[in-house]
Amino acid sequence: GLELKTKDGNFKIALNGRMQVDSQVNVVNEVSPAFSGNPALTNKLDDGVGLRRARLGVEGTMFKDFDYKFEYDFTRGNGTTGAGVTDAYLRWNYDKAFSIKVGSFKEPFSLEEATSNRFLTFIERNMIVNTFIDNPNTYKIGVGANYSQERYQIATSFQTEPVGANPSGSTSSASSINTNGGSNRNNGSGDTGWEANARVSGMPWMESKTKFLHIGASGSYVDVNNNFRQNGTFNNGGFSFVSVLDNNVDRSNVLNTGNLTNANGSKIVEDFTRFGAESALVYGPWSAQAEYIQTNISGKGYHNDTLEGYYGYVSYFLTGESRNYKSKTGAWDRLKPSRNFDFHSGGWGAWELAAGWDYIDLNTDNIKGGRASTAKLGLNWYPNSHFRLMGNIIHVLDLNSTTRGFNKADLDMFEMRAQVDF
Amino acid sequence: GLELKTKDGNFKIALNGRMQVDSQVNVVNEVSPAFSGNPALTNKLDDGVGLRRARLGVEGTMFKDFDYKFEYDFTRGNGTTGAGVTDAYLRWNYDKAFSIKVGSFKEPFSLEEATSNRFLTFIERNMIVNTFIDNPNTYKIGVGANYSQERYQIATSFQTEPVGANPSGSTSSASSINTNGGSNRNNGSGDTGWEANARVSGMPWMESKTKFLHIGASGSYVDVNNNFRQNGTFNNGGFSFVSVLDNNVDRSNVLNTGNLTNANGSKIVEDFTRFGAESALVYGPWSAQAEYIQTNISGKGYHNDTLEGYYGYVSYFLTGESRNYKSKTGAWDRLKPSRNFDFHSGGWGAWELAAGWDYIDLNTDNIKGGRASTAKLGLNWYPNSHFRLMGNIIHVLDLNSTTRGFNKADLDMFEMRAQVDF
Amino acid sequence: GLELKTKDGNFKIALNGRMQVDSQVNVVNEVSPAFSGNPALTNKLDDGVGLRRARLGVEGTMFKDFDYKFEYDFTRGNGTTGAGVTDAYLRWNYDKAFSIKVGSFKEPFSLEEATSNRFLTFIERNMIVNTFIDNPNTYKIGVGANYSQERYQIATSFQTEPVGANPSGSTSSASSINTNGGSNRNNGSGDTGWEANARVSGMPWMESKTKFLHIGASGSYVDVNNNFRQNGTFNNGGFSFVSVLDNNVDRSNVLNTGNLTNANGSKIVEDFTRFGAESALVYGPWSAQAEYIQTNISGKGYHNDTLEGYYGYVSYFLTGESRNYKSKTGAWDRLKPSRNFDFHSGGWGAWELAAGWDYIDLNTDNIKGGRASTAKLGLNWYPNSHFRLMGNIIHVLDLNSTTRGFNKADLDMFEMRAQVDF
Repeated sequence: GLELKTKDGNFKIALNGRMQVDSQVNVVNEVSPAFSGNPALTNKLDDGVGLRRARLGVEGTMFKDFDYKFEYDFTRGNGTTGAGVTDAYLRWNYDKAFSIKVGSFKEPFSLEEATSNRFLTFIERNMIVNTFIDNPNTYKIGVGANYSQERYQIATSFQTEPVGANPSGSTSSASSINTNGGSNRNNGSGDTGWEANARVSGMPWMESKTKFLHIGASGSYVDVNNNFRQNGTFNNGGFSFVSVLDNNVDRSNVLNTGNLTNANGSKIVEDFTRFGAESALVYGPWSAQAEYIQTNISGKGYHNDTLEGYYGYVSYFLTGESRNYKSKTGAWDRLKPSRNFDFHSGGWGAWELAAGWDYIDLNTDNIKGGRASTAKLGLNWYPNSHFRLMGNIIHVLDLNSTTRGFNKADLDMFEMRAQVDF
Repeated sequence: GLELKTKDGNFKIALNGRMQVDSQVNVVNEVSPAFSGNPALTNKLDDGVGLRRARLGVEGTMFKDFDYKFEYDFTRGNGTTGAGVTDAYLRWNYDKAFSIKVGSFKEPFSLEEATSNRFLTFIERNMIVNTFIDNPNTYKIGVGANYSQERYQIATSFQTEPVGANPSGSTSSASSINTNGGSNRNNGSGDTGWEANARVSGMPWMESKTKFLHIGASGSYVDVNNNFRQNGTFNNGGFSFVSVLDNNVDRSNVLNTGNLTNANGSKIVEDFTRFGAESALVYGPWSAQAEYIQTNISGKGYHNDTLEGYYGYVSYFLTGESRNYKSKTGAWDRLKPSRNFDFHSGGWGAWELAAGWDYIDLNTDNIKGGRASTAKLGLNWYPNSHFRLMGNIIHVLDLNSTTRGFNKADLDMFEMRAQVDF
Repeated sequence: GLELKTKDGNFKIALNGRMQVDSQVNVVNEVSPAFSGNPALTNKLDDGVGLRRARLGVEGTMFKDFDYKFEYDFTRGNGTTGAGVTDAYLRWNYDKAFSIKVGSFKEPFSLEEATSNRFLTFIERNMIVNTFIDNPNTYKIGVGANYSQERYQIATSFQTEPVGANPSGSTSSASSINTNGGSNRNNGSGDTGWEANARVSGMPWMESKTKFLHIGASGSYVDVNNNFRQNGTFNNGGFSFVSVLDNNVDRSNVLNTGNLTNANGSKIVEDFTRFGAESALVYGPWSAQAEYIQTNISGKGYHNDTLEGYYGYVSYFLTGESRNYKSKTGAWDRLKPSRNFDFHSGGWGAWELAAGWDYIDLNTDNIKGGRASTAKLGLNWYPNSHFRLMGNIIHVLDLNSTTRGFNKADLDMFEMRAQVDF
C-alpha cells in the first residue's frame, strides 16, 4: 500500500486494499430431484465467477498513541450501503503491549478468524469458523482491550450488532428489537444483543521463528433479541446458523437450522455460548493446524443444545518457506517467497500444497440444521508477497441436509482464486 | 489527513476522513400504551450503538485556480449507493475572496449547518437545523457563488434535488415528478424542485481571535414538485418535515407533519420559504450561540403557515481554550487543545462543558406535526485536535406528538460519541 | 491524481478519480397522449440535474511486472453495492507489448467504448455503442490478453457476468440461471453466460502525431442464459436491448426490444454475435470518426435477426489543438490545451466544435425495439487538461417507438456537463 509517516513515527497514514476474484466449477453435482413443492427451486449448485472481496482501507496514527482504521468492502452487504463497513475503530495505545479500541471490529475468537482472509491456506474458511463466527457478522460495534507479549496474547471485547445491521448468516432482521416503523439508520433492524468475547493464545514451545507450537482458547456469550408483539405473536429477532460447503461463488445455504425462534413462540433462542480450542505447529516448511468449536443454545425449548465441529489440515511449502506468524495478533501473517517469480530471470515464487478435513454438525434433539464433512486439497502459488493464485478441490464426504434436494448429494467442486493486496 | 502539494501550491491533493461511533441509552422511556391499531408498532425508543458517519473524501487543486472535492459517507443512504455522496463539486477561484462552484454541496443556510459535524458542540444538531435544513438533504446539486473577507461572508446558491435523490426527511419519492417507469439514475424519484439560498454573516465586533461577536441571516425559497396523474389522483411529490429529539441512534421521527400534499389533492404544498437569524459570542473560554429559523408553507389549503423554533446554548472550556472560528466560511473550525493528552507525561487535553435549550413547533392551523422542547448538558473531551469523546444528557421538557404513543412521553437520553477525523 | 513511485519504477501506486455533473433541459418535448392503460405513466422526458459519474480508483505496480487496478463508481448500481465496481483486475506484463489480466474489466469492442468517458467528444456515447456494448454492462469478469505496438493493437477476452450482477440494460435477472433461493453474492441473479471478444485496430496511415488514420474491427460471441422451471415455464434469463436518445439525466428507455425470451417460451434468445467496424481521421485541428455495429440474434423464433446502426461526426479545435491518441489502447487520450485558461493573464484554454449524426435500428421481422436517428451539435471548453465544460444540442430526427407515447415524438434536448478528473 501507500504509507507516509513523519520521521519520529508519531504521525502515519496508510492506504490499503485487496481484491479476490473467485471461480467455482461443480465437477460432480448429483442432487436429488428438485423440491417438489416449487419447481422453480432447483437445487444444483451453480458454476460461475465473482468478486469475492474488494476492499479499500485507510489507517493511521496521530499523536503517537492514537490509531484509527476504516475499511470498506465494496462487494459486501447485498445492497445496504452501511453493511460494507468492516473495521471502523479508534484505538488508544497505553504502550506497545496494551491497547483499548472503540468502534467496529472483529470478535476475538478462533485462530482462523483472527487470520486475515488474505493469508488463509484454503480459499474459504472452514465450516465451523464460517458458521459460528464469520457468517453471523463478526464485525460488531463495541469496545475491546488487547494485551500481547512475544509469546502470548489476550484479546477481549464487549460488542453488539450495530443498529441497522443485518447479520449475514441469519434472517434479515434477526437481531433487531426495533419496531418503530423501520426508522433506524441503515434501513431498519438491528439492536442490542450484547456479547462478551475473549481469546487467549500463545506459544508453549518456540525454538525459532520457523519451529514452534501455537495453542489457544476462545469463549463467548451472546445475548439474542426476540421481539414479540403485545398480542403475543412473534415480530422479529431470533437467530439461525447456516453453512455453505467450503465454497462461496454459489452461496446456497446447504446447511441451515432455520430461525431458532419459532413464529409461534414454542421455541425461543435466548442466548448462546461459544467455546473454541485451537492449535498450530510449524516445523520448517511443514505446518499443521486444527480447531474445535462448539455452540450451546439456551432458551425455551432448548436444553443446552450443542452444535459443533472441527477441522484439521497440513501444509507443505515445496519451495522451502515457513508459514509466517505474528505475535501481536497470535495469527498468520504475510508470506514472503524466498525468490519472487520473474519470467525473464527465472525465479518461480513460492508453492504450497495443503490437504484438510472439515466437519460440522448442526443437528441436535431440537435442531435439524444438517451435518457435513468434506475433504479438500489445495495448491497455492505466491509469485511474490502480494499476489497469489489458489486452486482448491472440495470433495463432499457426507451430507445430511433438510434443504431441498441436497440430502446425501454427491458434490465435487473445483475453485480458483486470484488475489492481490496492497 | 494525507496532503501532498507542489512547492508553489498550484497543485494539491488531500485524502480526508471521519468516523463517529455513537451510542444511545434511554434512561427514562415512559410512553403511552402502544398504538392500538397495530400491536407491532410499539413506541419505545431503542437503546443501541451505531456508526453515525464514516466518510472518506478527496480534494485537490489544479492549475492554481481550480479546485474539486468529492466525499462519500458510507453510512448514509439506506441502501441507495448514490445517496451517500455529500460534497461533489468543481470550483473556480477568481481570487482569494470570490469563487464559483458547480456540483453537489451544502445549502448555504444557518451557522450550525455551515459548521462541519466534526466541530459541533453537542452530538446532534439542534432540532430546527435538522428539521428545516439538514434532514431534507442539504447536499443538493447546482451552482454556488461565495465571497468572503476577514470580517464578513456572503454565500449564495441555486440548487435542486439531483435526479434520483431521496430526501432523507421526507417520503421516498417526495421531490420527484418523474414517472417514466422509474428509469432515472439511482433508482427513480427526484427531479427539479429548484431553490435559491443565501447566507450573509460577519463579525460586527472583534477585539481579537478569542473575543468577538458573530451575527448572520439566511433566506431561502424552495419550489416543491407535485405530480398528479391525468385522472387527477396524486402520484408522488409533496414534502414533509420531521424531527427526532436530539438523538440519532434510534431514528424514530417523533415529530412528523406527514406529507403536506394530501393524496386527494385537498392540500398541496407548492413552495416554502425559510428565514434564519444566527448569533454567537466568544469571550475567552466562554461562548454562547443562538439561532431562530422559520419556514413558511404556501399552496392550496395553506395560508402562509409558519413552522418555527429556536435554540441557544453556552459552552465553557475548563482547560482555557477558545472556540475556533474560520472567516472563510463564517463557521466553527477545529479546536486545538492547549496541551494534548499524554498518559505518560501528564497532558490532559481540552475539556468543555455545555448547556442548551432546544425548541421546535411544527403545529399550525393546517399542520399537525407536533412540538417539542428539550434541555441538554454536554461534556466534551478533546485528547488532541483530531480525536474527541462526547457525552450528552437530553431531557425532554415538553412533547406534543401525533406519532403513536409519544404524546406527552417522559424521555431522558444519555448519548455518547467517539470521533476521529483525519 | 496522486502518484507515488520508487526511483526504478518497479513499485507505483496512484489514486485517481472523476466527477461529471450533468443537466438536461428538454426544449421541445412533444409526445403523444399518455399511455391509456395507466394514467401514471406519462411520457414526457424530465428536465433535471444529476451526478453522472463519481469514481475513485487505485492502481499500482508491484515487483515491476505485476499491476492491479480497482475503481468504484459511487453513482452506479441502483442500490446494489457491488454493482458500482468497474475495473477490478490483476495484470501480469510479459513485456511492454504483451500482458494478461484477470478480474473485472471492459469488453474489448469499439473505438468509442475503448475511449474513457472522460475523453468523449459528445456528452454521451452514440446509441449503437451504448445499446450493444455499454448498457448490457461492459465490465465483466474473466481473463484478457493484450498485445500492442506503436502502429497496431490486439485485445482479446473471455468474460462473463459476475455472479450477482444485474446487466444495466436488461431486466434485473436477465443473465441468471441461479435459482437456489437467491442466495448468491450481491443479492441473487447472475451466472455464466460466457462470451468471447476481440478487437484489432491500427493506423494504416500515420504522417505524424497530428495527421493519421485509425481503423479497426471488433467481433464478439455472447451466450445467453435461459432458465425454465421443471414444468416448462420461464423463470429468468433472456436478454433485452434498450436505448436512450443521446441523453442520460432522464433515463427512459425510449427504444426497447423487451426481453427477447418470451415468458411462454415461444421465442428464446440463445446467443448473439456482434460485429463492429471503426475509423477515425485526425488532420491537425480537424478530426472525423465513424463506427458501424451490428448484432445478430439467434435462437428459437429468430432467423439470425440483425439489429444495427452507425454514427459519424466531425470535430474542429478553434484553438488549434489536435485530438490526442494513445497507441497502447488504440483509443483517444487526454487533451492538453495549448494555453490554459487563466482569467488574470489571459489564456483561454481549448475550444472544440463538433457535429454528428447518430442512427440505430432495433426493428426486424421478429423484434420490435424501435428505430431512432438524431443530429447533434457540441461545444467543448477545456480550461486546462483536467477540467471540462460541455454543451450538446440533440435534435431527434426520426423516432419509431413502441414505448408509450414516444412514437413520432418531437424532441429537442439541451445538455450540459461539468467534468473534472484527477
